[in-house]
Amino acid sequence: QSSVTLSGVIDAGFEKRFSGDPFKMTPNRNGTSNWTLSGTEDLGGGLKANFSISTSFNSDDGTTAGNVLGNNGMFVGLTGGFGTVRMGRPVNTLYGNALLANGTKGVSFYDANAVLGGNATASAKVGGASSSVFVSNAIQYHSPRFGGVQVQVEYAPREVKGSGTADGFGLAVRYDEGPLALSFVNYKGADSNADGVKQKAVNQLAAAYDFGVARVLFTWRDQGGLPSNRDNSYALGVTAPVGPGSLYASYNVNEQPGTDGRTLIAGYKYNLSKRTQMYVNVANRNKAWLGGVPLPASNPGTMPNKSTTGFGFGLQHSF
Amino acid sequence: QSSVTLSGVIDAGFEKRFSGDPFKMTPNRNGTSNWTLSGTEDLGGGLKANFSISTSFNSDDGTTAGNVLGNNGMFVGLTGGFGTVRMGRPVNTLYGNALLANGTKGVSFYDANAVLGGNATASAKVGGASSSVFVSNAIQYHSPRFGGVQVQVEYAPREVKGSGTADGFGLAVRYDEGPLALSFVNYKGADSNADGVKQKAVNQLAAAYDFGVARVLFTWRDQGGLPSNRDNSYALGVTAPVGPGSLYASYNVNEQPGTDGRTLIAGYKYNLSKRTQMYVNVANRNKAWLGGVPLPASNPGTMPNKSTTGFGFGLQHSF
Amino acid sequence: QSSVTLSGVIDAGFEKRFSGDPFKMTPNRNGTSNWTLSGTEDLGGGLKANFSISTSFNSDDGTTAGNVLGNNGMFVGLTGGFGTVRMGRPVNTLYGNALLANGTKGVSFYDANAVLGGNATASAKVGGASSSVFVSNAIQYHSPRFGGVQVQVEYAPREVKGSGTADGFGLAVRYDEGPLALSFVNYKGADSNADGVKQKAVNQLAAAYDFGVARVLFTWRDQGGLPSNRDNSYALGVTAPVGPGSLYASYNVNEQPGTDGRTLIAGYKYNLSKRTQMYVNVANRNKAWLGGVPLPASNPGTMPNKSTTGFGFGLQHSF
Repeated sequence: QSSVTLSGVIDAGFEKRFSGDPFKMTPNRNGTSNWTLSGTEDLGGGLKANFSISTSFNSDDGTTAGNVLGNNGMFVGLTGGFGTVRMGRPVNTLYGNALLANGTKGVSFYDANAVLGGNATASAKVGGASSSVFVSNAIQYHSPRFGGVQVQVEYAPREVKGSGTADGFGLAVRYDEGPLALSFVNYKGADSNADGVKQKAVNQLAAAYDFGVARVLFTWRDQGGLPSNRDNSYALGVTAPVGPGSLYASYNVNEQPGTDGRTLIAGYKYNLSKRTQMYVNVANRNKAWLGGVPLPASNPGTMPNKSTTGFGFGLQHSF
Repeated sequence: QSSVTLSGVIDAGFEKRFSGDPFKMTPNRNGTSNWTLSGTEDLGGGLKANFSISTSFNSDDGTTAGNVLGNNGMFVGLTGGFGTVRMGRPVNTLYGNALLANGTKGVSFYDANAVLGGNATASAKVGGASSSVFVSNAIQYHSPRFGGVQVQVEYAPREVKGSGTADGFGLAVRYDEGPLALSFVNYKGADSNADGVKQKAVNQLAAAYDFGVARVLFTWRDQGGLPSNRDNSYALGVTAPVGPGSLYASYNVNEQPGTDGRTLIAGYKYNLSKRTQMYVNVANRNKAWLGGVPLPASNPGTMPNKSTTGFGFGLQHSF
Repeated sequence: QSSVTLSGVIDAGFEKRFSGDPFKMTPNRNGTSNWTLSGTEDLGGGLKANFSISTSFNSDDGTTAGNVLGNNGMFVGLTGGFGTVRMGRPVNTLYGNALLANGTKGVSFYDANAVLGGNATASAKVGGASSSVFVSNAIQYHSPRFGGVQVQVEYAPREVKGSGTADGFGLAVRYDEGPLALSFVNYKGADSNADGVKQKAVNQLAAAYDFGVARVLFTWRDQGGLPSNRDNSYALGVTAPVGPGSLYASYNVNEQPGTDGRTLIAGYKYNLSKRTQMYVNVANRNKAWLGGVPLPASNPGTMPNKSTTGFGFGLQHSF
């Protein structure tokens, strides 16, 4: 019997941003191109071992994000009546419990999660979370569901002693039953910002309701530990089944000085099958409060202070 | 049902070049060691989604060519009555329509494609083609076959605006029916050479005929945009079934100053099965016209002006 | 029919070393996390082609040891009445014939093989062996077994001419029948040490006996070519089935100046199934003879002259 499942996604498309970039091929606009090994073993007595090793790649030029294997989510763990324990580099507690319309993808640098977490700087990331989606060196406990309620605990101890380092702790409570989803997360970790705060706490509240014709999603995050009260970010989104596909739109705001801004995003995914989608999307980003938002040096083009728009289309296939 | 196929090649052997190198293990002498994920999904109505993600590796020391996944050819696309569309990093239009006897492999740096394209410099490469075999950031259209004729169009837009960059365009017409194969390719792209020419056009004509006892192959390439008329390269090859295997030989010439030279190559592949081959090959390289051809600094040994010979043997297994 | 098998290991756990490190997640404490492609093809007449391509990764943060594929063992080869020939990066002759209790893994830097080979320096490694477990650019011959006796020959020619380089040669004779295992290895290669010795010979003798209640293992290695007589290393180990798992312990000594030291290691592996284990282990390392043993700069914490202890636990799953 086979003990391993091989799966993945390949997504390629084209994009134009009116901020100085040419029209060009861009990978992973709707989903993250990846290949994944996963499996489950029945250990008897209701106990199961399970694992997943997912690695992302760039579908336009055949490169990866460094020397990686398992960067796109990885764990080995046990599941039983007590719940689930996972060790490795799982989805972090903040992102895993956010409720975003087409979260991490879309027109490059306009996606909801990047805005929520603070695009282009590490200031909004928490200790042990080497990206805004996954957390390395972490052990997670997911409780069983009691009447739709599930508790999640995360511990990501630091690797090195010294100033600027701290263990990461996450606690999430989630209700998910019928049309309603609610979640609260408290996350403590090292602040990689230069503001002298060593341990910061992030609180996140998220809610979604499925009205049938559309699902409305909201996530609000309080980036604690900043010397200003302007330390919140939030995302309001909607997804709706329309014809043989789904429409989505979101309004995402980050108040934090240095990474502040807001984006408007909308897109349509056309299902060629359950596994294959064509999509179009458009986004507008506005620098609302303070100085310019610099894009990463590795990214061609710059993000001017004024409103700028991008759009694109592509094809995503899951295998 | 399985939706993904896992396949690949592993090829390892030994080689001796009489240009200062020791006798040593060399990877990928007959085929490129790689592992490949691929699949096809029937979308109904004659439409299919398909993908391939192929990654090469060095079978002698367990390394890869950088942070790569899909570097050895990658695409996601659709196939239907209209033909085939592919996006990603497919085989480029020039190499895909060249007709070479054992094209890219053999005694290191003596292979036909390297000579055709201009060994050891990027001058013969075209915009968007990051190697002489594959092209990144490309979308390709392959028409259906009409009476043996197929048309291929490639567009590889540049990633960055600025001097020295240009979009890549390829157009190929190919006839392939019975014993005869004919192809013509016109390719325009950015010239990475320092000759001040921004946009260069390459024309390639190829023909092959299968006489039964042997197949004769010819590819001729005019490297346009050079300030000299000595800008052609060509390859003449023959392959013949002999016993439980096949014999091949080729004569390959590059006239371009700086990369000029000619190689004579011959080899025999012995089939242990359809999937497993043992092989031997020998090659002679001569610096025919101008100054010395330096090999890449990363490559031990140098290529003297005079004639130099190499040979080797190995084992290739496809899985 | 499938021609390729996909398998592997994922192992993650936690560790505390009392040498200045925090309690932290550490990958691969009991086994090396890896994913492996392998297969066998029947060529008829008793001949088979076989291959294996194994790549390691870090299960705690989704990284690899550089640009690697096949770094954790790789070969393509043929097996028949004559024996087995393998080309690529197989397990080296020294490690493959050592008899160690839980050889290369355990509390970081305390494992038996690292001590045996000379932790933290390359002085004990042999020409062509880029690690103390695998050897690149190698061809190996394994004879058939005659009355429990098998002969293994390894040739790993150097890649570059010049001082400090030499071909690697290995010869092993092994007896393995019933409760008794015996092996002798002679290995010659380039010495990467700065002691001016170009070609060094390493002799290794190993023996193990299975008493039923426990298996006792011993490996002794004479690191030839050193200007001192203090050039030996040895490992004494025991493994015993206890309850639904196995207990192991070892005492490992390296006399070589600069890498000298000894470790005491003990651990227990609890089998949740044939494929899944939980484990705990503890180790003490003592600097016995000369000056301090510096740990690699990349490794947090330092190894003081005095005795220091570490322990840990984890979960290993094979797929």
